[in-house]
Amino acid sequence: MFNQLGVIGCGLMGGSFALALKRAGLVQHVVGYSKSPTTTELAKRMGVIDVAAESALRAVAGSDVVLISVPVAATEATFSAIRAGIKDGMLVMDVGSTKRDVVDTARRVLRDPKQIASFVPAHPIAGSEQSGVAHADATLYNGRQVILTPLAQTQPELLQKATDVWTAIGAQVLRMTPENHDAAFAAVSHLPHLLAFACFSAIANQPAGRDFLSLAGPGFRDFTRIAASDPAVWRDILLANREEVLKQSQRFRFALDALEHAMLAGNAQALEDMIRSASEARGVWQIAGKK
Amino acid sequence: MFNQLGVIGCGLMGGSFALALKRAGLVQHVVGYSKSPTTTELAKRMGVIDVAAESALRAVAGSDVVLISVPVAATEATFSAIRAGIKDGMLVMDVGSTKRDVVDTARRVLRDPKQIASFVPAHPIAGSEQSGVAHADATLYNGRQVILTPLAQTQPELLQKATDVWTAIGAQVLRMTPENHDAAFAAVSHLPHLLAFACFSAIANQPAGRDFLSLAGPGFRDFTRIAASDPAVWRDILLANREEVLKQSQRFRFALDALEHAMLAGNAQALEDMIRSASEARGVWQIAGKK
Repeated sequence: MFNQLGVIGCGLMGGSFALALKRAGLVQHVVGYSKSPTTTELAKRMGVIDVAAESALRAVAGSDVVLISVPVAATEATFSAIRAGIKDGMLVMDVGSTKRDVVDTARRVLRDPKQIASFVPAHPIAGSEQSGVAHADATLYNGRQVILTPLAQTQPELLQKATDVWTAIGAQVLRMTPENHDAAFAAVSHLPHLLAFACFSAIANQPAGRDFLSLAGPGFRDFTRIAASDPAVWRDILLANREEVLKQSQRFRFALDALEHAMLAGNAQALEDMIRSASEARGVWQIAGKK
Repeated sequence: MFNQLGVIGCGLMGGSFALALKRAGLVQHVVGYSKSPTTTELAKRMGVIDVAAESALRAVAGSDVVLISVPVAATEATFSAIRAGIKDGMLVMDVGSTKRDVVDTARRVLRDPKQIASFVPAHPIAGSEQSGVAHADATLYNGRQVILTPLAQTQPELLQKATDVWTAIGAQVLRMTPENHDAAFAAVSHLPHLLAFACFSAIANQPAGRDFLSLAGPGFRDFTRIAASDPAVWRDILLANREEVLKQSQRFRFALDALEHAMLAGNAQALEDMIRSASEARGVWQIAGKK
């Protein structure tokens, strides 16, 4: 399918994409670039990449598919660094968890119509609270959803190629507008992360926090798992999508107020009704994608 | 160790205790009572209990160990129903997630000093969002912590016996006051449940909620797992421990306010610092008990 993959940012997401393409026999050769030479060194030793490039532009040269997997705030600098290397027919994707900001940046930086035609914004709903190439996994995207948010200028053949490559490594591909994407993920991803950070901090930062944490069980473990997520990545996501996240947080606060009001009023029926509605809806909910 | 176990409330907790004792060869015979005959019928078919009793009192008669595993609000009625059957040397335990209210109820209802001497309040930090005897599991308590909150009147030999039986089925036993117990679990269990109920409701009850939920990934799945918990059980817990839960919720709101303030102010450094503090603390935190 491809001759050479260029990975910019050899972390969990980029490394797993490289491994998945290699395992599926979809790429001959992988060139990787990371800000830190230690990362590319490790990626090479792990067989995630074949060659470490000295710059993002060098990782793009000669590639027919490029994956930008850097924290969202580094997208603009990455686009600037590589734009001169984007050739006609080259498929360029990102993996950012927010899409309006990435699309805006692409429009601003990739001014040449041929450059922007190559770009297919992508968000694979995968990853984990573990980051870094050491956790790269060829099956990370298998059974997961991948959202593509193409621009009006995106070349249709490249959009199809993007769909095909994610499908070939086991993902289910959906297309959305960047606006709908960001509204949806503010609710089902960014808000839960914000709440998990706040909850873990609130418990840990009280005088008896250490003792309390030693008593926590499996429910707490699962609820706070995402609080261990990468700080730089989540700083960028929460800032890039803050309007939508704050809207969702407001809805959450109303729901919390209603529960607390029932507790304070000793209104057992109202409290049970609200819990039952959440419990039943969560009981039938199932993660999409995974068979 | 025991001749007969009486289980009052043959659900996940009671059923798993019966199975664990049977598997460890710690009991000859199990008598079970549940409000619903369908439950005891199923428990009998599954081999969780040997005999279905017609009343809670009948489940106690002839037993040398009794486990009360009913929703917290049903504790008072259960104590009243069984007190006449509590004999000297009988070990009576509950499994409630709140302890001050259970201890107060025991003091009020088990007025005879011999009755209250038999009672060892217990809270196993186990269970799951799945309830019902159908999910009973002989290994549920293996590697988990169990908190005992004895009263001044609790007979020391029975407290030791309670410690021994939980230890024998693989649990790690801790002793605390009911007050310390309730403060700690308001933080690490009751608050997370409250937040999970509020978060799932807020997302599900908005116009695009259904579409949003179809996009949620593994982080959301784990974060909201506890939102599927039993409504009657959690109504009782949140009401019984509301002062402590509301205190923890206040601490949580302060932490959420601080994160949102940094987002609104575009203060990337402050936002990253707060996330990093939570992320690093959660990264090193480990669940206790499990080897």
